Amino acid sequence: MHHMIDTSTREAAVMAQGGKYPTAGEIRIWRDYIETAEALRSEIASRLQNDSALSPGDYSVLLALSEEHGRRLRSSDLAAAVGWERSRLSHHLRRMESRGLVWRDECVADSRGAEVVLTEAGAEALSEATPSHLRAVRELFLTPLSPEQTTAVRNVTATLRASLDAHSGL
Amino acid sequence: MHHMIDTSTREAAVMAQGGKYPTAGEIRIWRDYIETAEALRSEIASRLQNDSALSPGDYSVLLALSEEHGRRLRSSDLAAAVGWERSRLSHHLRRMESRGLVWRDECVADSRGAEVVLTEAGAEALSEATPSHLRAVRELFLTPLSPEQTTAVRNVTATLRASLDAHSGL
Repeated sequence: MHHMIDTSTREAAVMAQGGKYPTAGEIRIWRDYIETAEALRSEIASRLQNDSALSPGDYSVLLALSEEHGRRLRSSDLAAAVGWERSRLSHHLRRMESRGLVWRDECVADSRGAEVVLTEAGAEALSEATPSHLRAVRELFLTPLSPEQTTAVRNVTATLRASLDAHSGL
Repeated sequence: MHHMIDTSTREAAVMAQGGKYPTAGEIRIWRDYIETAEALRSEIASRLQNDSALSPGDYSVLLALSEEHGRRLRSSDLAAAVGWERSRLSHHLRRMESRGLVWRDECVADSRGAEVVLTEAGAEALSEATPSHLRAVRELFLTPLSPEQTTAVRNVTATLRASLDAHSGL
């Protein structure tokens, strides 16, 4: 918000000519961004695992089911909700089912897959894990950021996501 | 770094009373942040692999070596540079060595590990992969962001990193 640099038009022109690789400083911003996000994800995942015996994957699956009416989802919809390939989800669900966290209702299977249902044990595991997980998110992400920084994260993320969706749609 | 230490007691008290979990909106910002960073990392990794037959791990290793005087690094320093456990690095280097991208100079091994040396083939693979990798970083990260957003990313990343380092140092 501070310094509006008005070089964007000139830069766009230079880039259109195929010139202009990112500067070392720009590459540094990219690397720091991606490495810090990964370090945060990893720290929060390891706390989750220590505090609850749920992996982040378990947590995402349980959370997605808990948010649904009837606590059940088609496996294809669940895959979309957690952002995984169906084969990865299917492999993961087998292990969760053997631990009693979910069960797969094969009776209602169609081309979109069986329905996956949250069990009582799964709901309990999720609600036991949630407080310390949310504390970790607050401690490592929300508390360090000022309100303006939090707003900036939201805006930047929306911009990057829209651009990514546009590019992968090509 | 600002308010970490002296509010921790008060915060712990508030949390013990069950107050103040993140709001749904705050959780959404966190999830979007982490999922978008992961989606970007994954898209850029898959482009790198398509365009060059180098994985992001290969690329990081080659880049770290290329930036060193003499194009060589102790394996412990290389592990730190790419942010991996030494066992993961060692496994990865075996495969890179078999492809002729690096070689390990065991003669100079001490407790910090052998020296890892960039080969000519490795340097060539890196310089062939670099232009399209940098284009991808520019297209998906730098170009969509305004100058103010890029500055905001840098500031937010520095804040999150400092906080993470402080917390994992505890």
